[in-house]
Amino acid sequence: MEAINIGILGLGTVGSGVVRMLTNHAEKISSITGRRLVVKTIVVHDLSKKRSVDMTGIKVTDDVDAVLSDPSIQLVVEVMGTVETAKKYIEQALKAGKHVVTANKDLIATYGPELTSLALQQKCDLYYEASVAGGIPILRTIVNSFAADRIVEVKGIVNGTTNYIMTQMNQKGVSYAAALQQAQELGFAEADPTNDVEGIDAAYKMIILTQFAFGKDITLSNVKLEGISGVKLEDIEEAKRLGYKIKLLGISKLINEHLDVSVGPVLVPRSQPLATVQNENNAVFVTGAAVGETMFYGPGAGELPTANSVLSDIITVTKNIAMGTTGVRFNDYSAQIKLAESSEVVYPYYISLKVLDKPGQMLKITEIMTKENASFNLITQTELDEKNARVTMVTHEMSEAQLNRIKEQINAVDTIEVIAAYKVLGE
Amino acid sequence: MEAINIGILGLGTVGSGVVRMLTNHAEKISSITGRRLVVKTIVVHDLSKKRSVDMTGIKVTDDVDAVLSDPSIQLVVEVMGTVETAKKYIEQALKAGKHVVTANKDLIATYGPELTSLALQQKCDLYYEASVAGGIPILRTIVNSFAADRIVEVKGIVNGTTNYIMTQMNQKGVSYAAALQQAQELGFAEADPTNDVEGIDAAYKMIILTQFAFGKDITLSNVKLEGISGVKLEDIEEAKRLGYKIKLLGISKLINEHLDVSVGPVLVPRSQPLATVQNENNAVFVTGAAVGETMFYGPGAGELPTANSVLSDIITVTKNIAMGTTGVRFNDYSAQIKLAESSEVVYPYYISLKVLDKPGQMLKITEIMTKENASFNLITQTELDEKNARVTMVTHEMSEAQLNRIKEQINAVDTIEVIAAYKVLGE
Repeated sequence: MEAINIGILGLGTVGSGVVRMLTNHAEKISSITGRRLVVKTIVVHDLSKKRSVDMTGIKVTDDVDAVLSDPSIQLVVEVMGTVETAKKYIEQALKAGKHVVTANKDLIATYGPELTSLALQQKCDLYYEASVAGGIPILRTIVNSFAADRIVEVKGIVNGTTNYIMTQMNQKGVSYAAALQQAQELGFAEADPTNDVEGIDAAYKMIILTQFAFGKDITLSNVKLEGISGVKLEDIEEAKRLGYKIKLLGISKLINEHLDVSVGPVLVPRSQPLATVQNENNAVFVTGAAVGETMFYGPGAGELPTANSVLSDIITVTKNIAMGTTGVRFNDYSAQIKLAESSEVVYPYYISLKVLDKPGQMLKITEIMTKENASFNLITQTELDEKNARVTMVTHEMSEAQLNRIKEQINAVDTIEVIAAYKVLGE
Repeated sequence: MEAINIGILGLGTVGSGVVRMLTNHAEKISSITGRRLVVKTIVVHDLSKKRSVDMTGIKVTDDVDAVLSDPSIQLVVEVMGTVETAKKYIEQALKAGKHVVTANKDLIATYGPELTSLALQQKCDLYYEASVAGGIPILRTIVNSFAADRIVEVKGIVNGTTNYIMTQMNQKGVSYAAALQQAQELGFAEADPTNDVEGIDAAYKMIILTQFAFGKDITLSNVKLEGISGVKLEDIEEAKRLGYKIKLLGISKLINEHLDVSVGPVLVPRSQPLATVQNENNAVFVTGAAVGETMFYGPGAGELPTANSVLSDIITVTKNIAMGTTGVRFNDYSAQIKLAESSEVVYPYYISLKVLDKPGQMLKITEIMTKENASFNLITQTELDEKNARVTMVTHEMSEAQLNRIKEQINAVDTIEVIAAYKVLGE
């Protein structure tokens, strides 16, 4: 059986999983692809580090040229991370006519269009299923199963760390700080959790999902971004009383044929399937004009789930090599589409305010709301501490522009402060 | 742009959806496939029937040879239903070198292996994504994304009619008969609902899912089958008190490397994602050794969701034609695997008994359980009617063989009757 030689850049968690799965499932893979996959060379940063996988017969080196300049290696798997260095190596690999599989979300979100063009020009494959939602085959599914449909919205829980923290806050009634610490102890959050908790990681994934679902390249500055570090336990509990869970959601949505992309805490009705996604799991909810509502749920990270997505890509590339059909874009759909104005983007909102406990405050709030032509379903006032009350409301639909004006005016009142203003999802 | 001529057999709900979507999304499809898809001929049963879709330029006939004998038609879409007639037409199409896309679950569950071999021999494509779970791209996902993994279990809600009935019973506290009548009025259930409510439709889908997940061809007689017509509202309410929902679940599972396939009412913990699948929706839960637990949720039927799956197949075939790569099996995985013995198949069970209300009955039950070496977590007795009590228990894990012996011995006691014995799913 003809062999295909593979070079792997990086041997961390995902890299080790890839080597392990290629070894354990060699026979099944050969029976499907008609090719024998051979890991020839692995490039690591630290040669002295102990490794947990069997590397008999594999050359391990710290010289990247051992892969990039080896003409017998047809396929390069990049699982080393970083953006600029990984980009340089992938460009070199593509220019040498090698196919590339990567799990690098930051890289693809930042340089995806550029690398895709280079791959096309070189008649090489470039696949990156593992870059979004680890073990969930969401990119492939959009390409293969929504090709004839028209996607109107993609939303999801695409960051496991923040979903773990929100689940703990919701289930155990612990504070953000306590839940974060627990996540760090369990290895679900990094020592510096900024990238996760501020929604940046989720935003990168939404950039890639937006490219697949709507055929539109956007950048981080196009994503309206709010993290979870400001989410208060009181608001989680108030949301629970109202029948909602607060989740960090990425939403990419067509509004009047314009696109709006955001990441932030959202109130999700308890009966919505996304509300049942617990702890470090991920789920992507895709709404098609024809197919309606679908959801794809699974582990968002982890050695073997992520390695499995890398393996799916490796098998796709191998089949393409075998059939002589390499050099087709992973996602071939592109469309002209504008970003939505903040006056078009309407949602109901959950607004939570800290209000000095003296007469006339509620009047000020309702005056501002009325002036901005905004109304609410529900308003409650409870005690917050000795001096302050907490006022929460669920509004009718209002535009982002309206919301921003209301927030500005409320914050200008020195006795009232906006604690939270989160989107509310319909049933 | 080169055209591909399509012939469609049948113009019911799904057929109309296919024509509608091919027309509405012609441009997007051409941009992805590089081919123009032309519906040339549609074969209908009743030429005089009014149609809701625009058929300008399409030849409509009741002569199937207008499709099967037209050498300019490269692709036949079978959405007419029936088993034997559809089989005959598909065989003729394949023998004439035409590629085939079908949504016909009964046909594929019965003659899938035979038709697949014929297609392979003729170097033709045969795709049938829409045959399982309507709008959910589950077959493709198993082929593309679990190829390097080892699936250990596929379970799911794969029949919308029964899930609608169970949801209504659970949410509204109505009886089976009332929920069925409502489903019939809304068009979710047929006048003769046997195929759905007795689990036969779900079993056909499990046959196809089993083929994809485990590479094993089975027949209807290999599926342990129980429908929902015997499910009592009292058991739904008792299950609810215990934290479960009763769902009609298909389960195909590896046990000691042997396969067990069943369809029946199952107690699903409220926190399990399958428990949140409401009304006519479907969901398939796939557990991979590497990837862990994943779930794919969406509409199980309906004109456009099902048509969308047919279109995905049409696009796949078109791409294969364009790249010259037709004639590869939809699912290329096959494995030698035995069916499990009933002594190997263990689950915890929910058992519900009707017991004549006089002393000594509980003793008889516990004697039988002890004799069969079976134990329970929980046993409750409540009043059923003037003469009878209801005893329900949740057992520890026991084998099917044990369960069958217990049921037999209990039913032999003339004062006790087994009402229900359903599997209980873990968290």
